[in-house]
Amino acid sequence: MKRSITIALDCMGGDGAPQHEIAGAAIARERYPHARFLLFGREQALEPLLDQHPALAEASELRPTTGVVAMEDRPAQAVRRGRETSMGQAIAAVHTGEADVAVSAGNTGALMGLAKVMLKTMPGIDRPALATLIPTYHGESAMLDLGANSSCGEDNLVEFAIMGAAFARTTLGLERPSVALLNIGSEDVKGTETLRAAAERLRQTDLPLVFAGFVEGDKIPFGTVDVVVTDGFTGNVALKTLEGTARFIARLIGDAFRSSLMAKLGYLFARRGIQQLRSHLDPNKHNGAVMLGLNGLVVKSHGSANPEGIATAIGVAVDMARHELTKLIAADLAMMGTGRMERADKVGNDG
Amino acid sequence: MKRSITIALDCMGGDGAPQHEIAGAAIARERYPHARFLLFGREQALEPLLDQHPALAEASELRPTTGVVAMEDRPAQAVRRGRETSMGQAIAAVHTGEADVAVSAGNTGALMGLAKVMLKTMPGIDRPALATLIPTYHGESAMLDLGANSSCGEDNLVEFAIMGAAFARTTLGLERPSVALLNIGSEDVKGTETLRAAAERLRQTDLPLVFAGFVEGDKIPFGTVDVVVTDGFTGNVALKTLEGTARFIARLIGDAFRSSLMAKLGYLFARRGIQQLRSHLDPNKHNGAVMLGLNGLVVKSHGSANPEGIATAIGVAVDMARHELTKLIAADLAMMGTGRMERADKVGNDG
Repeated sequence: MKRSITIALDCMGGDGAPQHEIAGAAIARERYPHARFLLFGREQALEPLLDQHPALAEASELRPTTGVVAMEDRPAQAVRRGRETSMGQAIAAVHTGEADVAVSAGNTGALMGLAKVMLKTMPGIDRPALATLIPTYHGESAMLDLGANSSCGEDNLVEFAIMGAAFARTTLGLERPSVALLNIGSEDVKGTETLRAAAERLRQTDLPLVFAGFVEGDKIPFGTVDVVVTDGFTGNVALKTLEGTARFIARLIGDAFRSSLMAKLGYLFARRGIQQLRSHLDPNKHNGAVMLGLNGLVVKSHGSANPEGIATAIGVAVDMARHELTKLIAADLAMMGTGRMERADKVGNDG
Repeated sequence: MKRSITIALDCMGGDGAPQHEIAGAAIARERYPHARFLLFGREQALEPLLDQHPALAEASELRPTTGVVAMEDRPAQAVRRGRETSMGQAIAAVHTGEADVAVSAGNTGALMGLAKVMLKTMPGIDRPALATLIPTYHGESAMLDLGANSSCGEDNLVEFAIMGAAFARTTLGLERPSVALLNIGSEDVKGTETLRAAAERLRQTDLPLVFAGFVEGDKIPFGTVDVVVTDGFTGNVALKTLEGTARFIARLIGDAFRSSLMAKLGYLFARRGIQQLRSHLDPNKHNGAVMLGLNGLVVKSHGSANPEGIATAIGVAVDMARHELTKLIAADLAMMGTGRMERADKVGNDG
C-alpha cells in the first residue's frame, strides 16, 4: 500500500472555485497528513487563499495556469484546447507520474474527454467508465457507468463489472464484493440480449467477486448488492433520480417540521435523529466519482460541492491512489483475460 | 364526458388477491357511485367476499373464471393460454365493449402481452406504452414508457409524447401540459441521436402541449415538467429507483424517530406533519399505470397494492374512461399526423 500520495487538484473547476477547492484541500490536508498537493489555477486567485491556510500551503506546490475549461464547453473543444488549462495540467501531472491522482469539480464531459486522450485506455479495456459510491441503508454501494458511455455492448458491461469490483474492494474494503447488472426485472429472462449475454459471461468468471445476477432500481438504495453495473445512460438517469428524490424528500421533511408550532417543537426533540438522517443523505459526504479503466487515476467531484464535498472527493482519490487501483484492475484483467481475449482465442482455435 | 362507467376487474391478480381486489372495489364503489363492476375470478373465492360488501355486490356482476395468470408466467405463455383466465376475460370485456376499462394487479408482462394481442394497437401508433403518475413537490407528473418497450426509436418517443400529453390532460386536468424527454443533460447536444431527432420533431409540433426539451432524472420529483418521456428500460429503472429511494428514506425517518426517547417525544409533536409526508409518499395513493395506444383501456395496479391502492387504480381507470382517453389520443394523432405519416406523405410526394 502506497503511503505518500500526491494529488493534482484542478482549483478552477467547480461552482465555488477556487475558494471551495482550497478550503476543501485544507480539510483534506488535516485528514491525510501524508498527502501532498499540486494546485493548478490562476496564481493571483490562489495565492491569497493559500495565505489563509498555512498548513495546506506547506504541503502544496502552486502550479500557475491561465486557461480554464468552462462548464458550457463541449468535450471536443476541451480536448482540442484544454491541455493548457488547470484541468488539463492536473491530468498531465498524472500522466508524467508527478501526481498519483487528479481531482476536478469541473465540466464532466471535458474531464472525461481530456483524461481519455491524455492518459489513454488501459490494455484490455475497451472503454473507461465513471463510478461512484451511493449511500445505502447498510453503508455504501458502488455504481457504474454514470455517463461516460451512452450505449454499451456485452464486453463493456463485463469490463465495468471487473473494474467496479476492484473499485469496491478498494473503497469499501470488501474481499469479494457482490456485483449485479441493473435490469427491469430480476429474473434471468428479463432485459435486453446484451444484458443476458453479459450475465452469462459473468456467471462463469472466477474473479474475486460474487455475481448476483440482475438487480432492479428499487434495490439500489437498500444496498442489496455492492456493485451495480449498467450503461452510462441508464446509470446517469438512475443516479440523478436517486439524488433528486433524496433532495425532494429532504425538502418535504423540512416542510413537515415547519407546518405547525407543534411540529417545530417536535423538531427540537427529534433534532439529533433528523440531523443524522440529513447527514446520511448529504451529497457532500458521498462525493467523488472515479474514472476507471485509464492509465492513471482521475476523480470527478460534483460541481456544486462545498469544501466538505471537495475534501470527500480528495479522500476518494487518496483511497484509490493508496491501493493503486489501476494496478489492481490490470491484475484482475490479466487473471481472467477479458471476454474479448477469450473469444479471440476461441476464434483462433476454431480457425 | 361519459358518466356511467363499467370496470372489468381481474380479481385474481395481485399479491393480496382476491381479498384486496374486492375490498378495493368496495372503496371505489363508494367513491364513484355511477361505476359498475364486472368481477372476474374464482366463484367460490369471490362469493363469500362479496357477501361482506353488499353495496359493491349490488353494483357488480360476478363473472366466474377458472384459470389464473401466475406472477412467474412468461408473457408468451400468458398470450397463448391466458384468454380464459380472469385477466384475459377482463381484457376481453373491454374488447367486446361490455366494459370501458380493465384493471389488474397481476403479472405486468402478461397483462401487456394479452392486452396488445386482444385489443390491438391504435392506428397511427407503432407501440403502446405504460404510463403512470408520480408524486412531485407540486402535485403529480406523468411518466412513460415504464417497461413496455426496452428500446425505442424516434417515432416511438414522439408517439409516447403525444399519448403522455393526452394522459396528463385527462388525469391532471391540464390544457397544455409541458412535455420533456428524459436525458443525461439538459443541453440540446446531450444524449443519443434518437433523443435529439425526437426532440427536433417535438419542437415543431402544434399539438396541445408545450415541448420543454430535455429533462434530467433529478428534476423528476420536483415536477419540473408535467410529462416525462423515455424508453421503457430507462423509465422502468428511473421509476423503481425513485420508489426505492422514497422507501429507503421512509425507513431512515422511522429509524430517526426511534433512535432515542427524545426523538420519540418529537414524533408525538410532529406526528401530523410526518403523517402528511408519509401519505404524500405512500405508493398506494399513487397507484395505477395505464397502457396507452391500444384500442381499449387497461390499468395496471402494483402487485403489492393494498385495498386503498386498488381503489386508487380503479380511480385512475374511472378517470380514463370518463374522458374517453382513447378517443382523445386518436384525435391528437389525427390532428398532427404522426411523424410516420408525415414522412410517408413526403415519400409519396417525392415519388
